[in-house]
Parts: sequence; C-alpha cells; structure tokens
Amino acid sequence: MIRTTHAGLRQSVLRRYLRSKSTLAPTIKEQISASPPIGSTLEVRGFVKSIRNSKNVGFLDISDGSTSKIINVVLVGREQPRFQVGESVCVRGEWSASKGKGQDKELKYNPENPNHSYEIIGEVPEDYPLQKKATSMSFLRTLPSLKHRASTIASFYRLRSFLETQMMDFFNNHSFTKVTPPLITSSDCEGAGETFEIKQADDFFEKRAYLTVSTQLHLEAISLALNRAWTLAPCFRAEESKTSRHLSEFWMLEAEISYLNKLEPLLSFTEEMIKSVTRSLVERKKEYLEGTYLDQEVIESRWSSILGSDWRRLTYHEALEELNKQGANLEFGDSLNLVHERALAENGPVFVTDYPASMKPFYMLKSLSYNENEPTVACFDLLLPQFGELVGGSLREHDYDTLIESMREKSMNLEDMEWYITLRKCGTIPHGGFGMGWERFVTYLSGHDNIRDLVPFPRAPGLCKA
Amino acid sequence: MIRTTHAGLRQSVLRRYLRSKSTLAPTIKEQISASPPIGSTLEVRGFVKSIRNSKNVGFLDISDGSTSKIINVVLVGREQPRFQVGESVCVRGEWSASKGKGQDKELKYNPENPNHSYEIIGEVPEDYPLQKKATSMSFLRTLPSLKHRASTIASFYRLRSFLETQMMDFFNNHSFTKVTPPLITSSDCEGAGETFEIKQADDFFEKRAYLTVSTQLHLEAISLALNRAWTLAPCFRAEESKTSRHLSEFWMLEAEISYLNKLEPLLSFTEEMIKSVTRSLVERKKEYLEGTYLDQEVIESRWSSILGSDWRRLTYHEALEELNKQGANLEFGDSLNLVHERALAENGPVFVTDYPASMKPFYMLKSLSYNENEPTVACFDLLLPQFGELVGGSLREHDYDTLIESMREKSMNLEDMEWYITLRKCGTIPHGGFGMGWERFVTYLSGHDNIRDLVPFPRAPGLCKA
Repeated sequence: MIRTTHAGLRQSVLRRYLRSKSTLAPTIKEQISASPPIGSTLEVRGFVKSIRNSKNVGFLDISDGSTSKIINVVLVGREQPRFQVGESVCVRGEWSASKGKGQDKELKYNPENPNHSYEIIGEVPEDYPLQKKATSMSFLRTLPSLKHRASTIASFYRLRSFLETQMMDFFNNHSFTKVTPPLITSSDCEGAGETFEIKQADDFFEKRAYLTVSTQLHLEAISLALNRAWTLAPCFRAEESKTSRHLSEFWMLEAEISYLNKLEPLLSFTEEMIKSVTRSLVERKKEYLEGTYLDQEVIESRWSSILGSDWRRLTYHEALEELNKQGANLEFGDSLNLVHERALAENGPVFVTDYPASMKPFYMLKSLSYNENEPTVACFDLLLPQFGELVGGSLREHDYDTLIESMREKSMNLEDMEWYITLRKCGTIPHGGFGMGWERFVTYLSGHDNIRDLVPFPRAPGLCKA
Repeated sequence: MIRTTHAGLRQSVLRRYLRSKSTLAPTIKEQISASPPIGSTLEVRGFVKSIRNSKNVGFLDISDGSTSKIINVVLVGREQPRFQVGESVCVRGEWSASKGKGQDKELKYNPENPNHSYEIIGEVPEDYPLQKKATSMSFLRTLPSLKHRASTIASFYRLRSFLETQMMDFFNNHSFTKVTPPLITSSDCEGAGETFEIKQADDFFEKRAYLTVSTQLHLEAISLALNRAWTLAPCFRAEESKTSRHLSEFWMLEAEISYLNKLEPLLSFTEEMIKSVTRSLVERKKEYLEGTYLDQEVIESRWSSILGSDWRRLTYHEALEELNKQGANLEFGDSLNLVHERALAENGPVFVTDYPASMKPFYMLKSLSYNENEPTVACFDLLLPQFGELVGGSLREHDYDTLIESMREKSMNLEDMEWYITLRKCGTIPHGGFGMGWERFVTYLSGHDNIRDLVPFPRAPGLCKA
C-alpha cells in the first residue's frame, strides 16, 4: 500500500496519476496467445502452483487462472530465490524453448541477468491449505474463499463462461431476444412449500413477495410479444434436497417460442441447441478441460452420447411398457424415479413425452393423444445417460376456456393469475418452451457429477457459507 | 386445441407426430434477412399493429416483435377480410415491390388467389387496450402483461439483448471469465436497512440469509483466482426510493481486475468498455431504435457525448473547488448531490475520483494522496450528462493489516467477514473493480429516462405487479 503524508505532493502526483494512460497488466492467456518470440523478455504474474528445486536449477509453475495453461519457470543457477506454493508473484525473465518433455516454452529466470527480476506480491501463511497434493473436491468444499484457485474448479468457471457465450450465439442466430423476467414475484406458481418468501419491513411491496422458482410464466408474457425469448437467470427453491443434483440457488436457462402447434419441433430445437453448443466445445476441449483432475473417458463418453444419432423419443406410455418389460410394475400415473430414468436413457439421451396431466402443472397443453381415461399433456423430459433429467418443457395451454378449466381443476386462485390469463384473451398464440438447469448442463459436459462444485458459493439446506 | 377421444388413433398418430422432423415457424426477422425474391409466396405471423381500409384496398401492419421491422400487408379487392388491432394472425400472400413511399417491399394478399390465405390465430376483446394511438409510457405501465407488445418497449428489450451480447464479446476479448457470485448471502456488507432478508422455515440455511446488494466481495474472491472476472447478475435493494433511477430488483454488471496498482488503468478500462459497446451500437442504430417514439436527438447527443474525446478526470477535491467557484458552498466530506453531479458532467462524461474515506465503504484502498487530515480512497464515480452516476469503482484494500484497521474503524463484525479477510492473508494481489447499473446503462443509450420502462416487470416500493 502506497501512503504518503506529504500533503504538498498531492496535486502534482495526483494529476499525473489520473491523467496518464496505461493498460492493465496482461493476463497469462493474453501473453500466450500473443506468441512472444523466443528470446523476448516476459513479465508473468500469477500464483505459485508447484515448486521443484535441485542443486543447480529450480522449477516453478505459475498460473493466474485466466487460462488452463501454466507457465513453467526455470530458475537458473545456485542462488535461487525462495518461493512458497500459493504466493502471488511476478517473475520477469526470458521466454525460451524448453528442453523438458511436453513443454514447448518456458520462462528462464537468471539472477545474474540485470534485466531479470522477481517480486513476491502476496505471501502465504505456513499452513496455506491449497498445496499441490491435497485437493480432493470434498476438501475444497471446506475452503469457500480459496477453492476457486484449484485448477479443476477454475476450469469449471471458464467452461461455464465459454458455454454461456456459445449459448448466446446460438440464441442470437435463432432470432431470440434475451430478456430478464422478474425474480421477485407475487405469485407462487408451482405450489407452496418450495418457495422462499421475502421478509418485508413496513409492507414494502404492499403484498407478499417470493423468490421465483421458474421465470416461465413471466417469460411467456414477454416472449409472446417478441416471438421468441430466452433468459439465463437465477431461480430459488426451498427444497430440503441435499443431493449432488440440487441447489437452493441455481441458474436456469428458459426459452419460449411462439407459433408452436406441435411438440416435436420443440424437441428438435432442444436437441439442436444442446448438440450445437457441445460441438463448439469439442474443438476447444484442450483449452477448457486440460490440466484438470476430471476423467477424460467420462467426458468423451458424455459428449459422444450427446453428439450421436437422433435422440430417441418415446411417450410416457411407451416408457411404462418398456420398463414393465424389464420387470418394473408401473401403472398410468406413476412417477418415473431416477432408476427408471437411467434405464430409459441407458443408450443415449431420450425424450419422454406426454406425461399424465395429473403429474404436471396447470399450464401444459393437453396432448394430441388426450383422452378422458388417461389424460396426458404435450410435455417432455430430456433424460441423459447416468444423469437423469436435464430439460423439461411443454406446449403451453393457449386457449382461454381450457386454461381456466385446468386452473379450476388444480384449485388455483384465478384472481392472482389474472395477468397471465389475460394473455389468452388478447391475441393468444400457440406456444411452448422449456427450462434447463444451467449448472446441470455445465456439470454434465464437464464430466463431473456434483453440481455444487460448479458454483462458486453453493446454497443448499444448511449451506450458506460466506 | 386439438383433442381426440379416439383411443385407437393414439399410437399411430403419436408416432408420426413425435418422429417427424420439423422446424419452427420463421420469425419476421428471419424472413426479412433471408431476402425472399419478389413474387415468392410468404407466410407471415404476428400481431396486427394497425389497419387502414379504403374501398378497393386495405392495409395491415404486422409485427411479431422479433425485429423493429413491420410487414406491410396490402389486401387487394373489395372483399377484404376483417381484422382487429391486437389480433395474432397468419397471412399468406405474395412478396411484392411496394408502390408506397419509403417501403420497399410489401405482402400482397389477394382473396381470389387460391394460394393466398389468412388465419386469425387469436382474437382480441373489444376493449383491447393497445390501440395504435394511445400508448404513453404511463399508460403502458398499467398493463403488466401486454405492455411488452408496444414497439418502444419491445425495442428496449431487443436493445438490451444486443448490448449484453456486445458486452460479452468485449469481456471475452479482454481475457475475463463470466462468473456467478451468490445472490443469497449471509453477509450484509453495505450496511443494514437496504437489504432484503429471506424468511426461512425451520432455519433452512442455519443462519440468517439476505439478498445481495452487490456481488463485489464474492466476485473479488473468484476474480483473484481467475485474474479477471465479471458478472451480470440481479441485485436487490430495499431502499424506499420511488424515482425513475431506482429499482428494488435490478441487474448489475460488476468486474474485478487483478494486479492493479493504480486507479487510472481502471478508469481507462471503464471508458473503453462503454465506448466500445456504444460504437458497436452506432452501426446498428436503425435496427434497434427505429420505429420507436424515442427522441432521436437525445439519442444522438448521448452517443456522441460518450464517443467524444477522452473523458475528463478530476478528484473530489478538484470537483469541490470547481463547484464552489460556481457558487456551491461545499466542504471536504460533503456529498455531491444530483445537481452537483450534473454540473460536473455538463459537457460530457466525467470521472470524479478520490472521495473522502468517511463517505465510502471499508474495502476501498487509501488514495495515493491519502493524508491524515483529509483521508481519501482510490475510488471513482462515473457521471453522465443529464443523468448522474452510471458506474462506481475503486481499488480494493489488499493489505491485511490495513483492511482490519478499516473494518475496525467502521465497527464491522470481523468474524462474519473472515472468509473475505482470508484473501489478504493468502497470496494477496492488488486489485480493483467497478459496478454498473445495467438498466441505467441501457436506458442512457436508448435515449429514455425512466429505468422502470426497460424492465419487463419492475419491482419498487409498492410495486410488485404479477
């Protein structure tokens, strides 16, 4: 920290310091992609990830987290500076061709070269927990401030950022507008008990207010006006689920599409969305998943199962038949559990459609196959191998009378939902959409299993660290 | 709604309907950008925006909200179909060169042509409120479900989506990772009273939990691990501000940059970020802001003030001197109000830096000009002409002892903030960052003044419709 008590210095120094132009210190990603010529001087900033010393030479790995790439520093000579794992440092040396295996370039620091220098920017205490060897995920979860520096965790973040960029491109290329439905809502649409309520001093909103569990209903209102709209926004669920697949705060990708009369274009669109983003990742595999502890075989198998031939589509009814042939004893109206879901998706992603109306929310359109004994809705769940549900979607009921009827069947308060019902009275349009758990998607593509590790500060029952 | 009770039909129809491939109905944006040849048949879907009938010909404007472009339909002959403003329709006709002024193409519908057809998809009631003439913003605010269909409101949404895409590109090009700090937090960092608390059944999180007012502290932890990180995420403030510049729920763009020793690269970066995104918009002005009721002169003047020469930079101290010369009577430690801010930014955007430490939060680094009589911090506010504050940022205190001292001065609970303080003990790095109200930014560029109109479902004191 720079501090001066020379009040006289103030104006002149400040003027220079405010007016001079300067750029940010380059990241390692920027430095590597600029391909500096061999022999040039490079100043690298980052954390010391590992250290290896021998008599005449020392080795230092430096990473700044901007990329999975690590700078290998060679410390030449007997008089080597002392570093600790975890310190933030700046090393200035010569960019050199490497003699080591598998590394094409390295930074050579020679204490005798007056042009070379190093600085320890931030020290670490002796018990700094993030040593090279001891970084299991369960251990990292105990370090809410520091876990982000672990290479695998940082890879998750970069992967997520990349996938969001690709998703944005995909939706832009498909004529969608990205919008922001509200997260504070006065309607608790999916049923009580799973919703967080907001404490209000002095009746702040003048009505009860909740955190949204899904932005769908509001997104419908917006997307009907824009033809197609999507969002990637936080959702909140007060479920008591302490599993590796649930969070109390998570991001959800939701999309709504107008002029949709049938379910299958929605399935095709969902499939293409996921395949398209996955394809873009295949070319960047090295960049996003190298240098991690993730199982490369799992990654390969997940990606190839996504990119395989057209995904299987079967109705809930067909799913029951298939599962019953395998020894399940399911009747119309029974839920499919995780074991059933995994059995159906054993050989690749599968869309299960047309679930019983009784199992699904009020807003879903009755199926083409609707009949009074076994009423079904035009909906789908996308199930992934060894993973379970990733996406859920449906056509939305666009007919005023039928919507009212469905809401009455579910004993809903029509007055609270007047704003939503109105959409069916004023230039209604057949439409549909879906929601995809964003962390689940990134987790699946990363080859990992626990969505909590994808999230910098996960929130779940009993879990609100920092 | 299609409904059948023929149970026998079920399997065969369903199989076809699930397995056939088909694409989505094209949006008007897609149709126009495909440049269909004159004479081709086109099927257009959208809302009827306006109608003009004469004896031998009728005119219909159709918009689907995917673009600001409107399809002009010419209804040929005496036997014209009857439409109502607000109906959702599908019209199939011939893509023709227009005889009208200023319109190069139109869709010709001829009832005698067997290849032409139309369908009224969704009717409107007689009192449908969104007629061509009567759409003031204050009127639209009374229509939470339908206002999105007004051309100016829809333009805001498309503009916002475009700007987010450009911002993503900008940050990707500058080696940033987009991340998601938590929105539910156990620390109330900016002081009590402005924070919403979450109601918890059965002590859900096992501690009190709040909605974040700024993701900065968590973003610091993440960005230190990645060198640079940014987020665009909702923030929540329980302020009793019922102004056109405040919302209880808004989106904030926040960025944190490591290895930053001085304030001025942060100012340059902020300036370049805003200029870069604005430049990309200039080329697309017609696409995003035509067909709206926005004042084109205001838009031009705002854009040119942003894109003008280097923005002025002055310290809080210099700002006081300047304002006092103009007759203000300000002393060190006084706040600048909106009138002061607008005076300083009269001729263009201005960075005001180095505010008194007493006015700013604990985490800001002491200024280069710090002295014990007039202690200041290395921070900035970006003020815009006729608008006020858009961005606030600072260097963050990275020294452990000094941070503790600042926290003690502000009587903070050190135990709650242990996770944050730890960052200064473990490989600390000089760093800084800023936050920008996303709706304010989009509003400013749109030429509009009220940020509430930019938001599909605005939340403010007493305002939580739908």
